[in-house]
Amino acid sequence: MTVRLDQATIDLLGVLAYGELTAFERLAGDARLAPSISDKHALAAMAAAEFEHYRRLNDHLITEGIDPETAMAPFVAPLNEFHDLTPPNDWLEGLIKAYVGDGLATDFYREVAAFVQDAATRGLILEVLADTGQASFAVAKVRAAITADPAVAGRLALWGRRLVGEALIQAQRVAVEHDALTEMLVGGSGDLAGIGRLLTRLTDNHTARMQALGLQS
Amino acid sequence: MTVRLDQATIDLLGVLAYGELTAFERLAGDARLAPSISDKHALAAMAAAEFEHYRRLNDHLITEGIDPETAMAPFVAPLNEFHDLTPPNDWLEGLIKAYVGDGLATDFYREVAAFVQDAATRGLILEVLADTGQASFAVAKVRAAITADPAVAGRLALWGRRLVGEALIQAQRVAVEHDALTEMLVGGSGDLAGIGRLLTRLTDNHTARMQALGLQS
Repeated sequence: MTVRLDQATIDLLGVLAYGELTAFERLAGDARLAPSISDKHALAAMAAAEFEHYRRLNDHLITEGIDPETAMAPFVAPLNEFHDLTPPNDWLEGLIKAYVGDGLATDFYREVAAFVQDAATRGLILEVLADTGQASFAVAKVRAAITADPAVAGRLALWGRRLVGEALIQAQRVAVEHDALTEMLVGGSGDLAGIGRLLTRLTDNHTARMQALGLQS
Repeated sequence: MTVRLDQATIDLLGVLAYGELTAFERLAGDARLAPSISDKHALAAMAAAEFEHYRRLNDHLITEGIDPETAMAPFVAPLNEFHDLTPPNDWLEGLIKAYVGDGLATDFYREVAAFVQDAATRGLILEVLADTGQASFAVAKVRAAITADPAVAGRLALWGRRLVGEALIQAQRVAVEHDALTEMLVGGSGDLAGIGRLLTRLTDNHTARMQALGLQS
């Protein structure tokens, strides 16, 4: 079967699919930190939704005649490294990681949605985008924890900074190694100004999320 | 709303639901040990199916006017303890845990399926039972690993013994604390002979599974 998709679109599907698969596995594992069954339920349900996103991206690659494992392979190291370097030490750190990670994923789907040429791939990305944002339950929990013990806010703010810092380091690494993908993501221009504007949008959104949690970004 | 279900059925739904939720969370976490994306996919897909079982059991409890958290609460300690005491040290141990755990769960659903009086609950248990057995992919992988390095067989056989030993210790603890559930599970007789026959069936099946893996039980 002939492959219709260009390399940038294949790379995009690969990074999104492996991103969902690792997010699923780490979040589901972090659910063991939950202090109650209903907390565990909330994080586990979010992880299960991420597996469903992964499955749809994986199936789409197969439908398009692309081996999913080959498409995901270049993104295994940076995504594993991000998670290996950011294991939550407790439930609150796990919640913040879920919320910040879900937010970054939502931003990423939103950024690329407009630029994907292939209609079927774009449709899938919009559908997954519509199903993100499930981590909003974290906001009330984190705010309540800070109200109960204001001293945790400093540690959690640092944790949020670390998460976004590690995410940017890995994103930078992916961008350097995948020109076609980077060009697509900055709207076809691929210039430094485009990358700068993209980073500004991502960090602005991250700041807004940290504020929603009651934390300095 | 009036609760229709008797305590044994509520206990059963509670232990099944929390069993699926913890299996989901631990298996999904163990997927990080996978040596390849396709291995990760296989274990993650099995974990996602377990979340779906959990969700259905949870929804059924709500439909029947029972608070799921209350129903699951008595089983949190034994199930968490089982998993806390059996963290896989590598991918093969994770695979065996998935296979042995899935097998024990299948046996358990099969044992109770006949004895649940409530038709809606029995129907749900039969549906979940039909969706178990997803860990058979583990058999070929474990056998191949033993062929490649026969020296691992001894360690893995011990691991299988530990898993079933820890499972029986926790099952015993649950049985002692939940008379009504135990009576239901041994077919209403509740006598020692019935419990003995049940344990014989469970250990016979475990032996068969260990043989399928190429391991002494």
